[in-house]
Amino acid sequence: MVDEFRWPLRVYYEDTDTGGVVYYANYLKFFERARTEWLRSADITQQDLIKNDQVMFVVKSAAIDYHAPAKLDDQLEIGVRVEKLGKATVNFSQQAWRHSDHKQELLCSGLIRVGCVHAVTFRPVPMPLTMLEKINDLYTLGGMAHHIAATN
Amino acid sequence: MVDEFRWPLRVYYEDTDTGGVVYYANYLKFFERARTEWLRSADITQQDLIKNDQVMFVVKSAAIDYHAPAKLDDQLEIGVRVEKLGKATVNFSQQAWRHSDHKQELLCSGLIRVGCVHAVTFRPVPMPLTMLEKINDLYTLGGMAHHIAATN
Amino acid sequence: MVDEFRWPLRVYYEDTDTGGVVYYANYLKFFERARTEWLRSADITQQDLIKNDQVMFVVKSAAIDYHAPAKLDDQLEIGVRVEKLGKATVNFSQQAWRHSDHKQELLCSGLIRVGCVHAVTFRPVPMPLTMLEKINDLYTLGGMAHHIAATN
Amino acid sequence: MVDEFRWPLRVYYEDTDTGGVVYYANYLKFFERARTEWLRSADITQQDLIKNDQVMFVVKSAAIDYHAPAKLDDQLEIGVRVEKLGKATVNFSQQAWRHSDHKQELLCSGLIRVGCVHAVTFRPVPMPLTMLEKINDLYTLGGMAHHIAATN
Repeated sequence: MVDEFRWPLRVYYEDTDTGGVVYYANYLKFFERARTEWLRSADITQQDLIKNDQVMFVVKSAAIDYHAPAKLDDQLEIGVRVEKLGKATVNFSQQAWRHSDHKQELLCSGLIRVGCVHAVTFRPVPMPLTMLEKINDLYTLGGMAHHIAATN
Repeated sequence: MVDEFRWPLRVYYEDTDTGGVVYYANYLKFFERARTEWLRSADITQQDLIKNDQVMFVVKSAAIDYHAPAKLDDQLEIGVRVEKLGKATVNFSQQAWRHSDHKQELLCSGLIRVGCVHAVTFRPVPMPLTMLEKINDLYTLGGMAHHIAATN
Repeated sequence: MVDEFRWPLRVYYEDTDTGGVVYYANYLKFFERARTEWLRSADITQQDLIKNDQVMFVVKSAAIDYHAPAKLDDQLEIGVRVEKLGKATVNFSQQAWRHSDHKQELLCSGLIRVGCVHAVTFRPVPMPLTMLEKINDLYTLGGMAHHIAATN
Repeated sequence: MVDEFRWPLRVYYEDTDTGGVVYYANYLKFFERARTEWLRSADITQQDLIKNDQVMFVVKSAAIDYHAPAKLDDQLEIGVRVEKLGKATVNFSQQAWRHSDHKQELLCSGLIRVGCVHAVTFRPVPMPLTMLEKINDLYTLGGMAHHIAATN
C-alpha cells in the first residue's frame, strides 16, 4: 500500500497567460484532475457517485503556495495525499512538481478541503462506505481504517 | 428597433496565453457572453428558459475567422446579429471589435448556429413563443415576424 | 477616500460546471479581474507596468474559503481591500458576493498575497513609487502612506 | 507511415458546464492539445520553435460541427490529420471521438487553419524546413514531400 498518488500532465497553451507562465487559477484545475484520477485509481468515478449514491464532492477551502512558475511544454506531476479523513470531509495535501532530466522541482503546493454533499440539496452527507473501502484497499490513509471500523 | 446588439468586455490575464495574445478558444466564450446578454436585453435568462420552458440552447456549429490578435487590457465590443431564424435554430453572426481612441478594429468574426433542445433529453424542440415575441419587440430579425405569425 | 473597491460581474456558462455551480478555480479568475480593475481605478494598467516599469505582479499565495455556490446568471460583486502593504508585496482580502433583490450573500472569501517581480527575470523588485502614489490618492491603505513616506 | 494521429484525453469537471456537457469552446482546447502532441510526436516543441526559429503558430480560422455532447468522465480521442500544406499554413481536420466498450462515437469535427508567424512581429513566415522534414519522416502528408522538395 502506498500513501501518495501521482498524476502526470503536460502544460499547453490554454494553461498559460501573457506573463509567460501557467495562470495561477489553473493549478486548481490540475489539482482537481489529480484528485479525480486518485478516485479512479480506486475504481470510483464521480459520475457513479452521483448516479448510485446521489453524492458529489465540493471544495470547502483551498490554501495554495506558488513557489516557481510552470511554463509551456513543461511536464508536471501532481501529488495527492490524504492528510485527514472525516465522516463527510477529506483534507488533501497536493503538489505540482516539474520533471526534467533526473530532478524534480516543487512549483506549487496546497491544502484542499473537500466535502461530500447531496447531489441535489448540496447538504453535507457522509461519504459512501463502499467508496471508503475501495480507497482503503489501495492507500494508507491516517485514520481511515479506524473511521471505516467506526462507521460499521 | 435595431438589428445589432453590442456587448463590451475587457481582456484579462485569464484570457491570454504565453504567445502574448488572447487564446483562440476564448473568443467563443466572449461570443457566448454576448449572446447571453442579447437574450437578457430582451428580459430572457437561460435559467428561466430551463426552469419555465425546459429548454436550453446548444451550439450546433461555429465558423470563426481570426483577423488580428487581442491583447491584455484591450477593451473589446462583441457584436450579435441574427442572420436566420428557424423554428428550433438561430444563426448568429458575431464579431469581436477592439476599441481605442476613435477607431475600431475587427479582430475576429464568426457564424454561430445555435439549436433549441429539451433541457433533459437534448432533443431539438421549437423555441418558446414568448421568447420569440420578447426578442421581436426589440430587434429587427429577418424572417422572425413571419415565423412568429406562422407559429400562431 | 474609501478602503474597499467593488467590481460587478455576471456568471456565464463558461464559469459553471456539471455540478450546476461555478467551478472552484474560477473564483480566482474573478478575484484577479477585480484586482486588475482596482488598479485601473487608480489609472494603472498592467500593460503599462510591464512597458514602463518592467514589472509584473505574480500571486505568491491564495487562501480561499467557499461558503455557498454561485450559479448561472448570478450577479456577483467582487471586493478588493488591501490588508497589508510591503515594499514588494501586497496582501489583499477579497470576497465574492451575490446580489439579489435587496440583500447580498457572501459566497467566497480569500486572502491573496501578490508580489511585484521583474517582468523578465521574475525576481522580486519594489513596487514603482508612482503606482503607490496613484493608489494612495484614492484608497485608505493601512500602512501605505507610511510606506510611501519611508520610500522617499 | 501513417496519415492520422490520435491523442487520448479525459473529460474533467473543468471542461463541463451547468448544461451537463463539455462547454463548446473547450473542444478547441482539446484540438490544440492534440496538434501540440502531433508536433511532439515528431520531436518538435513549440518552445523550441520560438527559441530556435523565432516562429509561432496561430490559428487563422476554425470551423467546428458539434454532433453529440461529451460528458464528465468520458474518455475521448482527438484526431489530427493534415489536409493541406502550404508554405506558411497548414489545414488540419480534427475530430473528437468518445470511446466506450468496443465502439467509438464522433462528437465533434473541425477544420483548423493554422499559420506560421514570426514570434515577435506576428507576420507570416515560411515554416522551418527542419520542422517539415521531421514531420515528413513520420506522416503521409498530401503535398508535403513535394513542398519540401520545392523549398530546397
